[in-house]
Amino acid sequence: MPASIGIKEKGNDLSVFCSEVRANAAGVFTQNQFPGAPVILGRKIIQQGVLRAIIVNSRISNVGTGALGIENARRMADALAKEFDIPREEVIMSSTGVIGQQLPIEKIEQGVRGISEILEDDPLVGAAGIMTTDTYPKALSLSVGDAVITIVGKGAGMIEPNMATMLVYIFTDAAVDAARLDDMLRGAVRDSFNMLSVDTDTSTSDTCLIMANGLAGKVDEALFRESLNFACLEMTKLLARDGEGATKLLVAKVRGAKTEEEARIIAKSLINSPLVKTMAYGADPNIGRVLMAIGKCTNCEVRPERIEIRINGRQVFKDESRTDFDEVEVRKLLSGELIEIKSHLNIGEGMATAYGCDLTEGYIRENAAYYSS
Amino acid sequence: MPASIGIKEKGNDLSVFCSEVRANAAGVFTQNQFPGAPVILGRKIIQQGVLRAIIVNSRISNVGTGALGIENARRMADALAKEFDIPREEVIMSSTGVIGQQLPIEKIEQGVRGISEILEDDPLVGAAGIMTTDTYPKALSLSVGDAVITIVGKGAGMIEPNMATMLVYIFTDAAVDAARLDDMLRGAVRDSFNMLSVDTDTSTSDTCLIMANGLAGKVDEALFRESLNFACLEMTKLLARDGEGATKLLVAKVRGAKTEEEARIIAKSLINSPLVKTMAYGADPNIGRVLMAIGKCTNCEVRPERIEIRINGRQVFKDESRTDFDEVEVRKLLSGELIEIKSHLNIGEGMATAYGCDLTEGYIRENAAYYSS
Repeated sequence: MPASIGIKEKGNDLSVFCSEVRANAAGVFTQNQFPGAPVILGRKIIQQGVLRAIIVNSRISNVGTGALGIENARRMADALAKEFDIPREEVIMSSTGVIGQQLPIEKIEQGVRGISEILEDDPLVGAAGIMTTDTYPKALSLSVGDAVITIVGKGAGMIEPNMATMLVYIFTDAAVDAARLDDMLRGAVRDSFNMLSVDTDTSTSDTCLIMANGLAGKVDEALFRESLNFACLEMTKLLARDGEGATKLLVAKVRGAKTEEEARIIAKSLINSPLVKTMAYGADPNIGRVLMAIGKCTNCEVRPERIEIRINGRQVFKDESRTDFDEVEVRKLLSGELIEIKSHLNIGEGMATAYGCDLTEGYIRENAAYYSS
Repeated sequence: MPASIGIKEKGNDLSVFCSEVRANAAGVFTQNQFPGAPVILGRKIIQQGVLRAIIVNSRISNVGTGALGIENARRMADALAKEFDIPREEVIMSSTGVIGQQLPIEKIEQGVRGISEILEDDPLVGAAGIMTTDTYPKALSLSVGDAVITIVGKGAGMIEPNMATMLVYIFTDAAVDAARLDDMLRGAVRDSFNMLSVDTDTSTSDTCLIMANGLAGKVDEALFRESLNFACLEMTKLLARDGEGATKLLVAKVRGAKTEEEARIIAKSLINSPLVKTMAYGADPNIGRVLMAIGKCTNCEVRPERIEIRINGRQVFKDESRTDFDEVEVRKLLSGELIEIKSHLNIGEGMATAYGCDLTEGYIRENAAYYSS
């Protein structure tokens, strides 16, 4: 499914995902006001609620490219429609990589030729073709009754999706109509990709699509919804763990906030704080930074005297003071690959969980010279 | 004025600023909802509008320390009042450093003894005593008619002041009443410290105080206001340049936004974006990141087709596309110590300027092990 067509200097740079038959479809896209050409076109294409195929290139994102960028995005889809002999309006396109450069469209058109003959069933192969600074391909499948849900994604940097996400494609052979797909996708995205942040930077290309071709027939709807939520959450964790330069998964659970919305704001503040992220990296039990990141949410109700904080299960703050925890023990807890910060505000019933990663020299190295690499 | 009393392992860790006579005073403090004991007390003390002296320790911030922390903050001020034989309610205190630890209050009380005899006139000496991860002391003085304004500050990390700032103390011998001082201070802070961010993290200890003892008599008010604004702006740049790990001063000027408020949001978004900050560090002309950081301000009006962007004077984006700039030239512009990103939105009259720094391995190194250092 993925191929090397010479956009990147090495590795695959083009992936195609194609359903045997027309599929019902839904999608959500970035809220960044500088969307790429594929997002501008994609919003229109998805309105019909049907898709047959997705074409994705990496290395160049086709953002900030004006009218020529729109034309090139169309040409990508046209080339695929021709190769597979399917209607052009049932093909959607994505591009990921550097902003502000034009696509090498002739190379892409040439690369698409013959690609219908080398399609593979393994979603990891497709996932490999859309990687940018990701260190490993990300895909997983799970069964829902007689049907299967497969999810494929890429992340790494410029990741704080807002109403959508990086590039994530979900495929199922369950029979679900487009309106319901849309509703279920938005529900799943809300507590997964929309609670993920690697670096607070919202990409111009975020896209999350779902296609349901119905070949396996109807499945139990509640089970399908639950499975979809699970798949999105697992993909969220995979993306967080592989954030640029990341060595750890950072999970912030907030309980007892005044409202769910306030819990979401505070959880995001925790995983986005550079000082909490470097604390995680350094395995330093500097819990003051956790207090700071909660307290800086000036639009949320916070009462210092009620707050309780746990790090990987160990209570570290209560009654307005640091607890008498064993520093060596907490340092050990912090040195693992998963760091869970649980804050109980003891005000209301609002709860939320956010996902992120630590901040390391690797992030700096990768991004101080991403453009020229 | 500063002394070493053994809180830090080496270097000065206590500073005292004292006016010969009672001074009119005003102050602004952090909006973080987890304020330190000195901020909780300071808000009350400043309400009287008069001050005689300020006592500041570094290394431990006296935040997250409960009732004992409040008592220790009071004891700091009491010790100073006794040493200088001045009313205790005219002494204000600050603490900066690690959160969640109790002050070594006996050491401080002991260290204060005799300090009245070693006071010096050089504000840089006082600035040295309040440094934490700052790499150099920060102070400057300027004349206003027959009077002088002196500003002393510390910054480095956990710096995104909100309605206040890190620790900044301003002294003048001009005669200005407390209400007017308050008004002028808030005006100056709005476009200087409140437009500064090193790492998006709002400290629990931010404090900015001004004292005017009137010994030089009245000065022209407009000139005083202008000089105060200038002093705060210069201190803002000093603090940005010395952000933790920083090698460059990053200035984002936004023009033509719908409102001033939107210009402020966009300017802050630019200097806070880790991807723009690492671009500055790497001197990489990856202008897509600038577009991204503008576009992610979903609460502001942004029209991609109208945006013009200049980096250090060189136009790099216009008419929805990257201009045909010379990459080697822009790379050279980006490799200096000052990076100015000017974005014209061409929508309205709103304008704002924000100040920050690049993001480097130095920030990570410093913060992955700050606590234990």
